Amino acid sequence: MAMTITEKILAAHAGRKRVSPGELINARVDLTLGNDITAPVAVREFERIGVAGVFDRERVALVPDHFTPNKDIKSAGQVAILREFARKHDLPNFFEVGRMGIEHCLLPEQGLVGPGDLIIGADSHTCTYGALGAFSTGVGSTDLAAAMALGEIWLKVPETIKFVFEGELQPWVGGKDLILHVIGDIGVDGARYQAMEFAGPAIENLSMDGRFTMCNMAIEAGGKNGIVAPDEKTRAFVEGRCRRPYRFYRSDPDAGYKEVRRYDASRVEPQVAFPHLPENSRPISDVGDVEIQQVVIGSCTNGRMEDLRAAAMVIKGKKVHKNVRLIIFPGTQEIYLQALREGLIETLVEAGGAVSTPTCGPCLGGHMGILAAGERCVATTNRNFVGRMGHTESEVYLSNPAVAAASAVLGRIAGPTEVL
Amino acid sequence: MAMTITEKILAAHAGRKRVSPGELINARVDLTLGNDITAPVAVREFERIGVAGVFDRERVALVPDHFTPNKDIKSAGQVAILREFARKHDLPNFFEVGRMGIEHCLLPEQGLVGPGDLIIGADSHTCTYGALGAFSTGVGSTDLAAAMALGEIWLKVPETIKFVFEGELQPWVGGKDLILHVIGDIGVDGARYQAMEFAGPAIENLSMDGRFTMCNMAIEAGGKNGIVAPDEKTRAFVEGRCRRPYRFYRSDPDAGYKEVRRYDASRVEPQVAFPHLPENSRPISDVGDVEIQQVVIGSCTNGRMEDLRAAAMVIKGKKVHKNVRLIIFPGTQEIYLQALREGLIETLVEAGGAVSTPTCGPCLGGHMGILAAGERCVATTNRNFVGRMGHTESEVYLSNPAVAAASAVLGRIAGPTEVL
Repeated sequence: MAMTITEKILAAHAGRKRVSPGELINARVDLTLGNDITAPVAVREFERIGVAGVFDRERVALVPDHFTPNKDIKSAGQVAILREFARKHDLPNFFEVGRMGIEHCLLPEQGLVGPGDLIIGADSHTCTYGALGAFSTGVGSTDLAAAMALGEIWLKVPETIKFVFEGELQPWVGGKDLILHVIGDIGVDGARYQAMEFAGPAIENLSMDGRFTMCNMAIEAGGKNGIVAPDEKTRAFVEGRCRRPYRFYRSDPDAGYKEVRRYDASRVEPQVAFPHLPENSRPISDVGDVEIQQVVIGSCTNGRMEDLRAAAMVIKGKKVHKNVRLIIFPGTQEIYLQALREGLIETLVEAGGAVSTPTCGPCLGGHMGILAAGERCVATTNRNFVGRMGHTESEVYLSNPAVAAASAVLGRIAGPTEVL
Repeated sequence: MAMTITEKILAAHAGRKRVSPGELINARVDLTLGNDITAPVAVREFERIGVAGVFDRERVALVPDHFTPNKDIKSAGQVAILREFARKHDLPNFFEVGRMGIEHCLLPEQGLVGPGDLIIGADSHTCTYGALGAFSTGVGSTDLAAAMALGEIWLKVPETIKFVFEGELQPWVGGKDLILHVIGDIGVDGARYQAMEFAGPAIENLSMDGRFTMCNMAIEAGGKNGIVAPDEKTRAFVEGRCRRPYRFYRSDPDAGYKEVRRYDASRVEPQVAFPHLPENSRPISDVGDVEIQQVVIGSCTNGRMEDLRAAAMVIKGKKVHKNVRLIIFPGTQEIYLQALREGLIETLVEAGGAVSTPTCGPCLGGHMGILAAGERCVATTNRNFVGRMGHTESEVYLSNPAVAAASAVLGRIAGPTEVL
């Protein structure tokens, strides 16, 4: 019987011919992920389970990215737990400061996740890897502990909503705008525990970086996972990079969807999500006059090459507005290095931007750009909840990197065409 | 009657023909400095004084460098106080994230301090500018408040100790090693409330960057100020850069010194100051086998071009040891940009180093590299007190940038010749 791509991957990992939405399954896991916030709890639970070792030392990734380089004594202690666990179990995929990146940029880059995989991570944005045609989702630290020990995860098979994007994207519109538009349409719980399958000509034409951004934010609509059928772009990304064999799955033409939603991508403007929910998205033409004090470009959502190129293209030869701090967080050291070689870092620093080593930093109010009371920030990150980036009286506006860069120049939320 | 350079500058700023050690004077101030830790207190006191404005809006510098980009809500609030004060009083020398640097690298670079100046700053390392032949010293926040209001400071004229360095420096030995050697010799209170005048052929041959490093650490021997007579190197540094007229002072040949100490610079090896005091300095040949987990290169002490060039030269083509995090903090955005253009940043990142935007960060245990219990760090910073960079059970070893870079490669404290 016909299945969606999500169902096919889950079935394959459950050792079943087929699975149906609502079923509870026990599935084999291809890789587990923990970070400096979630893994210490998982390590403690893992040790309570009492197994001798992890299920597969190549398949347990630990990325201390949230509060690193260590922001304080507590976070230093958290990372020390990961480091010690990695040493004890001889885990090759513990990533140290200086050789790492933001987890959801890093794992695809390092070839640790691939098409057809089932990945779980103790981080809500683990759904990012769906861009490669994998099933990936966030779990709690205790689920991570069990999966590190057993290589299995208990899951309920989600229903799938298909989002079909017809037409061609306008200039300066990308994955971030499509996903913000969708979340604005269905709300932050509009896809609760559902697979969000992104399809249609605009997705086929979308870059891998744009697809990562879209799947990354599936969780912001409550999605269990986001997913894009793998194609030649996927193949170009994973070939020679993926460390394990991979497999391309596609939804059957007659697969069963809970719902199919269609959008005319050509009518989507750059989006800005107003405080304090990602669903408060508006087209840039409806934003009005919103003064800002900070701009953050980066994160697991928009810290990839395409994002830095867009920001640098908009800002080149201009200066950051005197009332604005522009802070840039490349997704990984490799991305930093590539951006440096392309001259993007120089462009951003010349304009008056501060470029950080990769870290989640301000996105979750960690460090490196926390907001004071009354301040407003345009960020290419994924959440604009109350107090997300600092004081409960601060505000975060979500956008794509081109809008963020233009806003940094003008000191108010603005589209790139206003400065180009 | 004969005077030292320190006495001459103080006399000129007190409107006197001469001053003598031990005298209390009221002196005119050429520039005041505050940062995100000290200036908020000064602003509160300034407002209690009740004057309408600052004594000179061009001469009040505010540099939010310690916990920026803001590490938390509290530090964001601190910087907001500076920003608001700068706006209210229309101060051109408030330096925003992305257009700034570590205060003691930034002010000389920006031409805000020059030879013959009297500078006070609410930061102990304000003594740095003595490298230009200025009198500069750290004060408390209330003294800063009074000086911002009145442009004057109350001072006791210090006695002067003259440190004469004969001979030529060995390769990989610089200002950091000379000053650590001196502090090892006289102790952390060996120059308490004294002017430390550095002279002799090795100082004349020392670069401006090396002189900044030496004067920067005068406070680590308790010195009131560090100072080097200005010469052609000084002139080359300040010409076309200094925003105000400057004047070269020199000590009279028959000036009165409390003491003259002579060193053979050619016999000074690279120095390493062991925990937990800068006076615990040893030549690198006496260090033994000390494993490390972190290396910090940067700070107001060693975050200048010469420092980054030395580190990059040592590390080029090698990799940071797997057990070590290498974190680099360029002193200013200009230094970052210049290092980027010279390929130094690329070299450091290729080796596995994490490059931060300028901030004091880990030096004072602020953020971006805090140590966990039991960890050891080699740092080009200025203090290795208990808990200075994090946990009270961590350790900091002070060195020059070449030693730090070599240690990063080998995972233990090592001299550059071990890796070159």
